[in-house]
Amino acid sequence: MKKIVLSLIAVFCLSFLASAAKVDTLEIKSAAMDRTLRAAVAIPESYAKSKGRYPVLYLLHGAWGHFNDWLKKTPNANAVKALADQYNIIIVMPEGEAFSFYIDSPTLKSSQFETFVSREVVAKIDGTYRTIANKNGRAITGLSMGGHGAMYLSVRHPDLYCAAGSMSGALDMGTIRKLESEAETNKMFRAVYGDVPPTDAELRSHAVIGMVSKFKANNMPMIIDIGVDDFLIESNREFHRRLVYEKVPHDYTERPGAHTWQYWQDALPYQVLFFSKVFEANGSSVK
Amino acid sequence: MKKIVLSLIAVFCLSFLASAAKVDTLEIKSAAMDRTLRAAVAIPESYAKSKGRYPVLYLLHGAWGHFNDWLKKTPNANAVKALADQYNIIIVMPEGEAFSFYIDSPTLKSSQFETFVSREVVAKIDGTYRTIANKNGRAITGLSMGGHGAMYLSVRHPDLYCAAGSMSGALDMGTIRKLESEAETNKMFRAVYGDVPPTDAELRSHAVIGMVSKFKANNMPMIIDIGVDDFLIESNREFHRRLVYEKVPHDYTERPGAHTWQYWQDALPYQVLFFSKVFEANGSSVK
Amino acid sequence: MKKIVLSLIAVFCLSFLASAAKVDTLEIKSAAMDRTLRAAVAIPESYAKSKGRYPVLYLLHGAWGHFNDWLKKTPNANAVKALADQYNIIIVMPEGEAFSFYIDSPTLKSSQFETFVSREVVAKIDGTYRTIANKNGRAITGLSMGGHGAMYLSVRHPDLYCAAGSMSGALDMGTIRKLESEAETNKMFRAVYGDVPPTDAELRSHAVIGMVSKFKANNMPMIIDIGVDDFLIESNREFHRRLVYEKVPHDYTERPGAHTWQYWQDALPYQVLFFSKVFEANGSSVK
Amino acid sequence: MKKIVLSLIAVFCLSFLASAAKVDTLEIKSAAMDRTLRAAVAIPESYAKSKGRYPVLYLLHGAWGHFNDWLKKTPNANAVKALADQYNIIIVMPEGEAFSFYIDSPTLKSSQFETFVSREVVAKIDGTYRTIANKNGRAITGLSMGGHGAMYLSVRHPDLYCAAGSMSGALDMGTIRKLESEAETNKMFRAVYGDVPPTDAELRSHAVIGMVSKFKANNMPMIIDIGVDDFLIESNREFHRRLVYEKVPHDYTERPGAHTWQYWQDALPYQVLFFSKVFEANGSSVK
Repeated sequence: MKKIVLSLIAVFCLSFLASAAKVDTLEIKSAAMDRTLRAAVAIPESYAKSKGRYPVLYLLHGAWGHFNDWLKKTPNANAVKALADQYNIIIVMPEGEAFSFYIDSPTLKSSQFETFVSREVVAKIDGTYRTIANKNGRAITGLSMGGHGAMYLSVRHPDLYCAAGSMSGALDMGTIRKLESEAETNKMFRAVYGDVPPTDAELRSHAVIGMVSKFKANNMPMIIDIGVDDFLIESNREFHRRLVYEKVPHDYTERPGAHTWQYWQDALPYQVLFFSKVFEANGSSVK
Repeated sequence: MKKIVLSLIAVFCLSFLASAAKVDTLEIKSAAMDRTLRAAVAIPESYAKSKGRYPVLYLLHGAWGHFNDWLKKTPNANAVKALADQYNIIIVMPEGEAFSFYIDSPTLKSSQFETFVSREVVAKIDGTYRTIANKNGRAITGLSMGGHGAMYLSVRHPDLYCAAGSMSGALDMGTIRKLESEAETNKMFRAVYGDVPPTDAELRSHAVIGMVSKFKANNMPMIIDIGVDDFLIESNREFHRRLVYEKVPHDYTERPGAHTWQYWQDALPYQVLFFSKVFEANGSSVK
Repeated sequence: MKKIVLSLIAVFCLSFLASAAKVDTLEIKSAAMDRTLRAAVAIPESYAKSKGRYPVLYLLHGAWGHFNDWLKKTPNANAVKALADQYNIIIVMPEGEAFSFYIDSPTLKSSQFETFVSREVVAKIDGTYRTIANKNGRAITGLSMGGHGAMYLSVRHPDLYCAAGSMSGALDMGTIRKLESEAETNKMFRAVYGDVPPTDAELRSHAVIGMVSKFKANNMPMIIDIGVDDFLIESNREFHRRLVYEKVPHDYTERPGAHTWQYWQDALPYQVLFFSKVFEANGSSVK
Repeated sequence: MKKIVLSLIAVFCLSFLASAAKVDTLEIKSAAMDRTLRAAVAIPESYAKSKGRYPVLYLLHGAWGHFNDWLKKTPNANAVKALADQYNIIIVMPEGEAFSFYIDSPTLKSSQFETFVSREVVAKIDGTYRTIANKNGRAITGLSMGGHGAMYLSVRHPDLYCAAGSMSGALDMGTIRKLESEAETNKMFRAVYGDVPPTDAELRSHAVIGMVSKFKANNMPMIIDIGVDDFLIESNREFHRRLVYEKVPHDYTERPGAHTWQYWQDALPYQVLFFSKVFEANGSSVK
């Protein structure tokens, strides 16, 4: 009899492990842009049965992407949800549109994604869920344009986040022109800069690769990774070297892979492990 | 009533999570050395209730160390056991003595640690536990001298392991003389080379930094990490660069920290995550 | 008879080659500092027999040094003079005092060495000798603190120089604190900053390693070298990498040696060869 | 009258400086290959009027090239001859054919260029001219395939040369396959390896990038340069890093430019300056 009970419990526990996190899709009003955008939110299974507050990871998509990329494009469709469950972290995937670069456009009211992601989405999430509604329970990361975005928002808002990451990050907006044709770059940047293409100096002013002193002053835990076959590897290596030279603490990993969803699926578990340790050190973990 | 049952089950499940892995200490007879040495084995909690076969991670200690270092010296005394539980992996910590460097001494029968760790310990473990008794369920890593050992044994025995790692590895035996005094180095190496100190060429012939072609031929998944304040960082960087130059796949991480137990405790979870993914890809995981 | 004439001529020509440049020591009034300082000037042998205008190389000394270091401290006492002769270049060695760093002190009237070297010395030299009195015939280099000085003055005064160099340059004033004790650094910097030690931000604002964008905008030919055993190698490597990353043209050499006069004597001929080619391309050479 | 004589002498001396070195073209019988090949020899103007012995620089051409490339392809047609005159060095440019890589083919008698250049050409030159007929007066350098050749011959024949150089060297034969198509590589290597294309291991065994220990043992002065826009830059950087890591003395320069004759004309004067200093230190200079 005891054996049967144990077996049942074991099955029950396994079913816990197998069960998936729930995903909400929120409509979020942006006052700054005067329009409504969406965010996907992966809620760990344990959340419904708990009364506690949960830490939140903001997970940004890349260029040409949208809020639900991380749920639709990973080879294993369950990748993000499994991590939300495993670490008991709410994972928020806000809309960043095709080429916002997560900055506030100097000219276009329609593209105010720094304000949207760092203020409006955060307020909505903290108002909707039982979150740890302060920096000790908030981290941010992303891929490619979203890796830039996560580093950019975190370095400018150290009051909001306790840790930041980048996967295959476009860390040097100043060099995007070298990688794409002039016409292609200008087309990309219309969303941010409007009809007048940005000067190199403007691009440079938004590039995290040039903000090493600010990163040093903030001293925020950071995790940066890049595939050795990624076309963005040189700017990531350069950012790493500058951080090392200036003695700015950070985790930096090079691993096999290129600018692909297989790579990002491989990279994400290490990033979430990193953030879970910061949350734990902050007393922000759900056990 | 249903609520109470669920709560009880929840408590029970939590107790599963909180319960610690069991640790065995084995006496292992070495025919090669004609003496008996010990190994600690962390057995995941789930093992006792299972009939399945488990993957095994061999975890080597550093110079001046012993088989139970990983259990006694981490700031969190539970660090290794928690990982055995979390990933359902048997973790074996064999004796490597103070300066064996995990090689077979060319002169001393008393120091045959390549044979001991890669043959005799493996046979004993596979004969004692329900292991996946082939390379698909076997990985090896270690710290400092043990990082060297893990890379050295894996590159020479690709039939035995499916993955290898190094934390703060002493990857270049040829440069140890540059880091320590002549007298100190020679004293260290008496255990391996006996009364006649090794030539630089002998040391070099055992250094994994010079075996890039073999690593390339083996094409085994590898994870290498090093603290930016570690006195061994230059040889780790050089090994990474050579692997990148020769297009040998590997994960390489630099993170904050030095040659300390705090660093190794920080590094180990990333290494075990890496091995768990290889085991999973090999169909060797316990769910 | 013909043979004897030829021999005589040959001897005469050889005597030309063997004859040494003349060295003047000038007293130069600094209006900015309200005091008089010295400069040594090596005049090529050919100058006296010529009516043409000569290009000028400004050659700066290092910390704890003085205007005549380059004449007194090289193992071969004739090193600078021989190069003046060989390339028909006037070589000017101005006083930079022990720790001026060749900047204009923000607080001390007594330490205005940017103005002194780039304005007052240049005016005096152009007023005293048949120089090519414009940027096409003017280059600047130096060792250690003087390597910093040469890069610093050239990047801020691209109207004055056509080329710049650095030997073992102290290119990152922001890191000098890491290399010397706090007390020693503050003592050193009294000469520039007075009683209140400079903040890290102040030091950083004078460091050429942080001025890559300006170097890029100027696009001036540059030659930078460093010994592999020099304690300043990391900042020189970092400067080189930043220049490469930002595609700023420059010659960069690592060679055997440390922070010694033997090294600088070895390095100088390559630097002067470099400048002679720029002068030649500018039509500023004396044949 | 005295003035007129002086003027005449001055004109005469200038005409000395302006007059060009003489170039011989030698037919050199190769016993090893059983055929006759050519070499160009630039003889300094001073040679005819001297009875002394001269140092010799061997200067190798690149792939798809021939013995007279260095005389015909530099933008300034006088570049090599001017350096022979300026430094009083005999410069020998032997035939290396399109793809010999200056090695002795393991299979083809017709391609024995290691023997030809290092033994047969040297014997012919020492038999024909007043040379310093030992290693103290002999150096070797080259461009691209010839940079490889110079490093390869010097590391294998330290008895023959006192210094070696490489400009834009193809230092890693093992990676040539990565840069060219399979078909193109195999076509190239027919000249060396015949109908059966070489294995990667064979190519690797001839690559100087893998011979760092030999270079260290020889301890020969070396000068290596590469243009930052050269397609061979990665293998040159890797070779430099390995030499630095193993503490092998060498000069290493990165400068503006690509794989072009303009680059090689720019680089050669620094190389010859380097060799002239080694000759001088050896007592092998002609004053």
